[in-house]
Amino acid sequence: MTTMTAAVARYFGAPLTIEEMPIPVPGPGEVLVKIVATGVCHTDIHAIDGDWPVKPTLPLIPGHEGVGHVAALGAGVTDLKEGDAVGIPWLHDACGRCEYCRTGWETLCERQNNSGYSVNGTYAEYAIANAAYAGRLPANPDFAALAPILCAGVTTYKGLKETEAKPGEWVVISGIGGLGHVAIQYAKAMGLHVAAIDVSEDKLALARELGADFTANGATEGAVASIVAATGGGAHGVLVTAVSRAAFGQAIACARRRGTVALVGLPPGDFPTPIFDVVLKRITVRGSIVGTRQDLAEALAFAAEGKVRAKVAVEPLSAVNDVLDRLRAGKVDGRIVLQP
Amino acid sequence: MTTMTAAVARYFGAPLTIEEMPIPVPGPGEVLVKIVATGVCHTDIHAIDGDWPVKPTLPLIPGHEGVGHVAALGAGVTDLKEGDAVGIPWLHDACGRCEYCRTGWETLCERQNNSGYSVNGTYAEYAIANAAYAGRLPANPDFAALAPILCAGVTTYKGLKETEAKPGEWVVISGIGGLGHVAIQYAKAMGLHVAAIDVSEDKLALARELGADFTANGATEGAVASIVAATGGGAHGVLVTAVSRAAFGQAIACARRRGTVALVGLPPGDFPTPIFDVVLKRITVRGSIVGTRQDLAEALAFAAEGKVRAKVAVEPLSAVNDVLDRLRAGKVDGRIVLQP
Amino acid sequence: MTTMTAAVARYFGAPLTIEEMPIPVPGPGEVLVKIVATGVCHTDIHAIDGDWPVKPTLPLIPGHEGVGHVAALGAGVTDLKEGDAVGIPWLHDACGRCEYCRTGWETLCERQNNSGYSVNGTYAEYAIANAAYAGRLPANPDFAALAPILCAGVTTYKGLKETEAKPGEWVVISGIGGLGHVAIQYAKAMGLHVAAIDVSEDKLALARELGADFTANGATEGAVASIVAATGGGAHGVLVTAVSRAAFGQAIACARRRGTVALVGLPPGDFPTPIFDVVLKRITVRGSIVGTRQDLAEALAFAAEGKVRAKVAVEPLSAVNDVLDRLRAGKVDGRIVLQP
Amino acid sequence: MTTMTAAVARYFGAPLTIEEMPIPVPGPGEVLVKIVATGVCHTDIHAIDGDWPVKPTLPLIPGHEGVGHVAALGAGVTDLKEGDAVGIPWLHDACGRCEYCRTGWETLCERQNNSGYSVNGTYAEYAIANAAYAGRLPANPDFAALAPILCAGVTTYKGLKETEAKPGEWVVISGIGGLGHVAIQYAKAMGLHVAAIDVSEDKLALARELGADFTANGATEGAVASIVAATGGGAHGVLVTAVSRAAFGQAIACARRRGTVALVGLPPGDFPTPIFDVVLKRITVRGSIVGTRQDLAEALAFAAEGKVRAKVAVEPLSAVNDVLDRLRAGKVDGRIVLQP
Repeated sequence: MTTMTAAVARYFGAPLTIEEMPIPVPGPGEVLVKIVATGVCHTDIHAIDGDWPVKPTLPLIPGHEGVGHVAALGAGVTDLKEGDAVGIPWLHDACGRCEYCRTGWETLCERQNNSGYSVNGTYAEYAIANAAYAGRLPANPDFAALAPILCAGVTTYKGLKETEAKPGEWVVISGIGGLGHVAIQYAKAMGLHVAAIDVSEDKLALARELGADFTANGATEGAVASIVAATGGGAHGVLVTAVSRAAFGQAIACARRRGTVALVGLPPGDFPTPIFDVVLKRITVRGSIVGTRQDLAEALAFAAEGKVRAKVAVEPLSAVNDVLDRLRAGKVDGRIVLQP
Repeated sequence: MTTMTAAVARYFGAPLTIEEMPIPVPGPGEVLVKIVATGVCHTDIHAIDGDWPVKPTLPLIPGHEGVGHVAALGAGVTDLKEGDAVGIPWLHDACGRCEYCRTGWETLCERQNNSGYSVNGTYAEYAIANAAYAGRLPANPDFAALAPILCAGVTTYKGLKETEAKPGEWVVISGIGGLGHVAIQYAKAMGLHVAAIDVSEDKLALARELGADFTANGATEGAVASIVAATGGGAHGVLVTAVSRAAFGQAIACARRRGTVALVGLPPGDFPTPIFDVVLKRITVRGSIVGTRQDLAEALAFAAEGKVRAKVAVEPLSAVNDVLDRLRAGKVDGRIVLQP
Repeated sequence: MTTMTAAVARYFGAPLTIEEMPIPVPGPGEVLVKIVATGVCHTDIHAIDGDWPVKPTLPLIPGHEGVGHVAALGAGVTDLKEGDAVGIPWLHDACGRCEYCRTGWETLCERQNNSGYSVNGTYAEYAIANAAYAGRLPANPDFAALAPILCAGVTTYKGLKETEAKPGEWVVISGIGGLGHVAIQYAKAMGLHVAAIDVSEDKLALARELGADFTANGATEGAVASIVAATGGGAHGVLVTAVSRAAFGQAIACARRRGTVALVGLPPGDFPTPIFDVVLKRITVRGSIVGTRQDLAEALAFAAEGKVRAKVAVEPLSAVNDVLDRLRAGKVDGRIVLQP
Repeated sequence: MTTMTAAVARYFGAPLTIEEMPIPVPGPGEVLVKIVATGVCHTDIHAIDGDWPVKPTLPLIPGHEGVGHVAALGAGVTDLKEGDAVGIPWLHDACGRCEYCRTGWETLCERQNNSGYSVNGTYAEYAIANAAYAGRLPANPDFAALAPILCAGVTTYKGLKETEAKPGEWVVISGIGGLGHVAIQYAKAMGLHVAAIDVSEDKLALARELGADFTANGATEGAVASIVAATGGGAHGVLVTAVSRAAFGQAIACARRRGTVALVGLPPGDFPTPIFDVVLKRITVRGSIVGTRQDLAEALAFAAEGKVRAKVAVEPLSAVNDVLDRLRAGKVDGRIVLQP
C-alpha cells in the first residue's frame, strides 16, 4: 500500500477535498504515524482560509491534534519503535539551537515548523512526526479522548501556568468551549479554585459539572462583580479562551491586584487595555502560545492519570467539511475528533 | 513658631495659593519633617486638577518627593531621631496587615494613604511622614538631587525590575524626561544594555551622555526596526515612561519574543494591544506603580553610591505655579525641585 | 475574674507547674484570647529544656499553637472584635520595618517575638496575641483540629512551597509524625504526587490513608531506590520533617536532578552534605522556618475547606507533663492538643 | 596532512604523552576545530587521574576550554562555516530530548558527553565539536584570553546567577584563583557588590584590582565578622570556588538571612551543614555545574564586550605535564592556556 486518504486544502477558503495521496516517507529523525484520531481546532480554519499574516503553501493537509501508532522509523530514530502510541502537535519541530530552543521556549523559535500549516498535518491516514517533538502517549490509550490534549490541552495547561496562580488561589476561565472545558479540569488538578464565565448557560452547567467552584454568565450585568466577590477581591489568574473584546475587558476587570491575565487565542485586531487599572493594580497581561515539549509531556500526564478528559464527539474524516462548518458557526460543544 | 509657608490647592484646576498654615503635629508613629527640597511630579498636576477617578479632598498641600530633616517625633517612634535625613514618598502609609502588605506589595494596599493626595504633602516648610514608610537618606545628602528619587527614581527602578530583564540583556527606555533620564542610569547600574527612544534629539543626546548604548528618534520611520536590529531581535524589557498611544505601540514592537513591557505612567483611556503579536511572541505587558519601601531603600542606595543622579533645576516654592505651567507644557528637562 | 490557670516553666528541664496566674492585659495593638485548644510541639520541649543557643527567660508559659476567641481588645485594634476566632502562632510579632518585614519574610525579622518562647504562650486559659499577627479562623471552627495548623500546618505548607515543586510533580515527605501527616495532605491539595518515607509501618499505613501515592520504609534496604524508580528519576521536592542524619542523607538521594530538599526541623549539630551529588545534580538544600502571616492565612484556608485535617488527640491542660514525656519518647501519633 | 600533535592520557595518574594522532573526521552535526588555545582546568586532573566515580575510557585527549577556527564541517551543519571562531566546552553534547534538555537544563542530561572526559578533548592541534553545542566567539578574538571563559567563565557566571543575587546586592566570592578572579569581574558586570575572601594576600590584592569592594583574609580571625559587617548583615549570595571544609563553613556564615550559597567545585567527600543556622536563617545551599549553551553565550558576550578578561599565562602544549604539576601544587595564578 503506498497511498492514503487525506483531506486536502487546495484553495484558500474552499472546502477540503478528500483525496488519495502518497504515504509520506519519514526522513532522518522522523517517524511515520498511522493516525487513529485527529482533533479539529479553530487554527485549522485559519490555515484553510489563509487569513493569517503568513499563509501556508497549498496544497496542504491540515491538522495538528493527531494521535496514532508509529508505523515506520526514519534514519537515526532510537527512542521510538513501531507500534508506540504518539501524538503530533502544532509544534512539528524547531531549530534546537536558538536562544529560545536553548532555554526551553522552543514555541518561540523563529525557524519552527507547524503541523498542518507549514508542513502537512494529521487530517489523513498517515502523517509525519519529528521523533524529538512527538508527544509520547501511554500504551493502549483512549486515542479519541487524548487527541485534543495535543493542542487544546497543552495550550490551556500552559496558559494556566503562565498565569502564575498557585494552589489554593483563584483562576477565572473565560469561555467554556473546546479549550475552556479542558482548562477547568487542568485548573482543578493543579489545586486551583475555578470561576467560569461564558455567555451560554449550557456551558456554565458543563463548567460546574467539571468542577468549577463558581460560574457567572458574562452576558448578564453584575457578572464581573459577582466573580470579584466570590474570589475575595478578584482572581489571581485569568485565562481568556473566549476572544472577544467584551471577554477581554471582563478578564481584566476580574483580575485581582497583582493578577495575571493570560491570552491563548489569536483573533485579529487590537484589544483596548485600560492603562489606569493595569498600572494601579499592577496587572500583567500575557500572551501564551501552545506549549513546549515539556508542557505537552506534563499535559499528557494529567490526562493519562484521568484527571483531565476532553469531551469529544467522533466523526469520520470524510465529514471534515461539515465539522468545520459547525465549528465556524460556533455549534460545537467540547471537541470534535475525526477518524480516518 | 507655629506656622509655616505652604502651597495649597483650594479649587481643582486653579493655581495653588501660597499660604501660612499651622505646622502639623506628628501623631503616634509619625515624624515631622522640615522640608529642604521637594520634586515636582506629573501626578501633582492630577491632584491639583482633580481629574482622576478618585479625587482628593481640598484644601490640599500637594507634593510627594519631599526630603529634609526630622524635626519632631510622634509617640512610639524609636528608629528615627531629630536631625535624621529622610524622604517622604507617594506611599505615605499602608495598613500593614492585608495580603499585599503581608507579601511585600504594600503599593497595592487598598487602605494606603498617598502624600500630597489623600493626606497633605511636601510643598511646604514642614510635612508629616509615617516613620515606618519614610525613606532613609544618607547623612548630609545632596537634598535637591535626591528628592526626585522619592518618586521618579523608585518608580523607574521598580519598573525596570518588573521587566525582569537581567544583567547583560537589553532594555528600551521610552521617553527621556523626568523619569526616563533617571531610568537610563538605573538600567546601566543594573548591568543592562540600554536603548533610548524619544522624539526629541536633545533628549536623545542626554540619553547618550547618561550611558545609553543606542538611541532612536521615535518620530522617524525605522526607529523600531533600528532598535530591533541593535538589540539582536528586540529588547528583553521595555520601560514606557512616555505615555502616548504611539509610544505604547512602539514599545510592544520593540520587545523581543518573551519580552516584558512595563508601564509606569497613568494617562487616561485605553491603549490598543495587538493580540496576534502578544500571543505569538509571548509578550508580557505589565503595569507598575511607584515602589515599596524596599524598592525605595534600594533606589536610594544606588543614588547614595553616586550611580544615579537626577538632573535637577532648583526653584523657590513661591514659583510653584510657574513650574507647574512649564511641566504642563512639556517644557521641563529632567526634574524641577522646589525649596521652601 | 482576674486569674487563670496556666502551665508554667520555672526551671529549665523541670516539669511544668500548673499555677494560677494573673490574666494578662492586652496592650496597644494586642488582643486577649480565651484559649480553647493548644497543640503541643517539639519546639515547646526546647523552650522548656533551654537547650537552644538563645534561651527564654523564666518563668515562661510555653505554647504556640493556641486557638480560641478574642476576649478583649487593646487600644487601636480595629480589625478584630470580641468573639472572633483566632490563633496564636510561633511568630508573635515582628518589627514591621526591616528588610525582611518589608519583603514578606517577617519570619526572618531579627526583632521578632515568639509565642511561648520570648513572650508567654498558650498553655493557659488566656493568652495575648498581636492583632496584626494572629491567625484568622473561620467562624465556629473545630478548634482542636485547627490548633496544629498554627505551627505544624503552616510549617509544612511553607516547606512544601519552598521545595518549588509544581502541580503534577513529585514530593517526598520524610517522617510521617505530627508534621509529616499534615504535610501529605497539603501536598495532595497542592496537586502534587506524594511519596512518604518513615521507619514505622503504622505511619506508612497512615500516609497511604491520607493519600500518599507511594510509601517506602526507610529502615529497609532499597527504600531510596524504590522512590527514585516510583518517581521516574527522583522527586522534584523533598520535605524533611524527620531530622536524623540517616533521613537527611536519604532525602538528598531521593532528589531528582535540579530538585530541592527543604528542611523544617531544628535538630542540633551538622549534617553531612555530599558535595559531588549536590553539584553534579544541581540539588538545592534549603532551610525553612514556620511561615509568614500570608503563609498562615493560606494554610488555614486549606484546612477551613476541609482539604487538610490534623489527626489530634485531646488531653486536659493538667496532663501537659505526661504529654510532653510521651512526645519526648516518640510515642505520639499525629498531634496532641491540650484544653484548659 | 592527516595527523596532529596531541597530549594523551594512556594510564590513570601517569604523565600525558605527546603523540601524533590521526586528525579526527567530523560526523553529522559536528565540526573539526583547529585549536588555537586551550585552558587547563582542575577537572582535567580528575580525568587524568581517574579519581571520580565514573572514570573515562583511555586513551583520552583531555581538555575542555578549547578555542580555535572551524576547519571542516560534518554533514548537515548549516550554521557554521570554515574559519568561524568557536569554543569547545565541557558539555560536548546532550540528548536534546530529555526533560532537562527540553527545559534549558542540558547540563543535567543523563546522556551528555563531556569534552576531554567521555570524548576526546582539546589538548591537541584539532578537536571535534558538536556544532549545536560549540560556543560562538566574536570574529578575530583574543583566543588565549577567551579560552578560560569556556569553563571557568561560564561556571562562575552560572554560579552567580544561581545565587539569585540581584543588582545592588552583595556577593561573596570565596577563593580568588582560576575561577574566582573571573567571578569577581562577572559579579561587577552584573551590578553586584563584591566581597572577596581568600587565604592569600596576593590574591586579595588581585581581587581589589579587579573591582572587589571588600576583601577579607579567610585565615585570620574575624574574617567572617568583617564581611557580615561590610555587607550590612551578610551577603545575599556566596559563590564558593575554594572547596575546603573551612571555606564551606565560612561561606554559610557569610550568608545573609535568605541568602544562597552556590557551590561550583567538585571536591570529594561531605561538607558539614549547620542545620540550625540554615533553617533559622532560611539559607539555600545549591550546587551548580558548568553552564548551558545559553549561559555560555551570555558569558562569552560579557567577555566580548571587555567586561571580563581572564588573567592568563600562555605555554606551549608540550609543557602540559609541567603545567599540570604546578596546578596540582596550587602554584598557578589565574589560568594557564596551552597553545599547540
